[in-house]
Amino acid sequence: MTVAADGDHRPFPLSLVLLRHGRSEWNLQNRFTGWEDIPLSPLGEEDARRAAEHMKRAGLTFDFAACSLLKRAIATLWTAQREMDLMWLPALMDWRLNERHYGALQGQNKNDAAGRFGAEQVREWRRGYSARPPLLASPAAPPDHRYDGVDIPAGESLADARARVGAFYDEKITPRLRAGLRGLIVAHGNSLRALTMRIENADAEGKGIESMEIPTGVPLVYELDADLRAVSRRFLD
Amino acid sequence: MTVAADGDHRPFPLSLVLLRHGRSEWNLQNRFTGWEDIPLSPLGEEDARRAAEHMKRAGLTFDFAACSLLKRAIATLWTAQREMDLMWLPALMDWRLNERHYGALQGQNKNDAAGRFGAEQVREWRRGYSARPPLLASPAAPPDHRYDGVDIPAGESLADARARVGAFYDEKITPRLRAGLRGLIVAHGNSLRALTMRIENADAEGKGIESMEIPTGVPLVYELDADLRAVSRRFLD
Repeated sequence: MTVAADGDHRPFPLSLVLLRHGRSEWNLQNRFTGWEDIPLSPLGEEDARRAAEHMKRAGLTFDFAACSLLKRAIATLWTAQREMDLMWLPALMDWRLNERHYGALQGQNKNDAAGRFGAEQVREWRRGYSARPPLLASPAAPPDHRYDGVDIPAGESLADARARVGAFYDEKITPRLRAGLRGLIVAHGNSLRALTMRIENADAEGKGIESMEIPTGVPLVYELDADLRAVSRRFLD
Repeated sequence: MTVAADGDHRPFPLSLVLLRHGRSEWNLQNRFTGWEDIPLSPLGEEDARRAAEHMKRAGLTFDFAACSLLKRAIATLWTAQREMDLMWLPALMDWRLNERHYGALQGQNKNDAAGRFGAEQVREWRRGYSARPPLLASPAAPPDHRYDGVDIPAGESLADARARVGAFYDEKITPRLRAGLRGLIVAHGNSLRALTMRIENADAEGKGIESMEIPTGVPLVYELDADLRAVSRRFLD
């Protein structure tokens, strides 16, 4: 028997959901994390379950997922898939959804860094658009193959992250959206800020991005028209 | 900084590991499962953890995974990934790795079926190569999109399953093996029996397949030469 692609036409506007991972162990310790592969905390597992509950209650479902290569995001995705009975979803795993690389700040407590570099400088690194953090002298890959062939950065500005996140979105996400597929993208505070700029076609200077904040575990739902322009966005909480 | 694909040349023979999911709720109830999407039992989670432990101890690691669309296999894969610190692996999710479809037997207790149809007949359905089980009158897809575009079978012989599993292997797995990538394939008792026939280039009649049994949660490790011929196989237990 042939089961045709089901009859519903999934008319535009089409939902696209962005989800920042739940709280990791280093979120709780107020440390810069970046590409450090820190696990989700038990509170973060709770964040993921609650996010899934909100998405179910809103009647959302998905045809595919996309996720960074960092375990705090992957664990969040898996928990959401389990809770929504969507374990079978194909998932695009891509380093370009990784958190912005925080360079030599990775591992440092944010208050300590403010003491050392000044609060204004640290605010600029964290919230600004073009400022790069102090770079790592020698960026190191984990002892596995996940970043084979990748130019591992020594530290990134939000603008740097926007370039790679945007390339990923254009290459992997938009063809699926045009086909009417509903996606769940699980990533990180800054890689998702960068992604909102791409989705909303923000101007090149990143105006207004300082005030854009995506809380952990709170789904951000976009409705896109047939040209993939954002017609609305809302947080589910 | 460019991190090149690392220096090790991963010389052939190359490992390919097949893993049958841990015990599901229906394995414990001795029921035919097929495409019914029955969860892993707590014992099955233990099976998956033990399998991962064996793989780690054997020094195995992976560059990609492949899995059916059934949650007992997916949960087994996720647990193995977590235990082996390989959550980032890209996973090919494909219905062609699903268990053989058991038609109208799905849901029936195996002993009850033997009482109804005769032990010899049930043995032939379970272990034989060409025998199809009683077919479903109207095969039903789950209320989601995972089988969009798929000809959902009404019941399959092992030969039927071999055809689709073999096509998947040729299309998705062999190009990765030729590139030197190490794969973990998580699937089901009969879809993996069918896969061993493909890997070992078994003859068309399925001679000897009656005696091939892959236990739940016991990794089966193949070593393949550069022509992807199996030069050895062993169970890790």
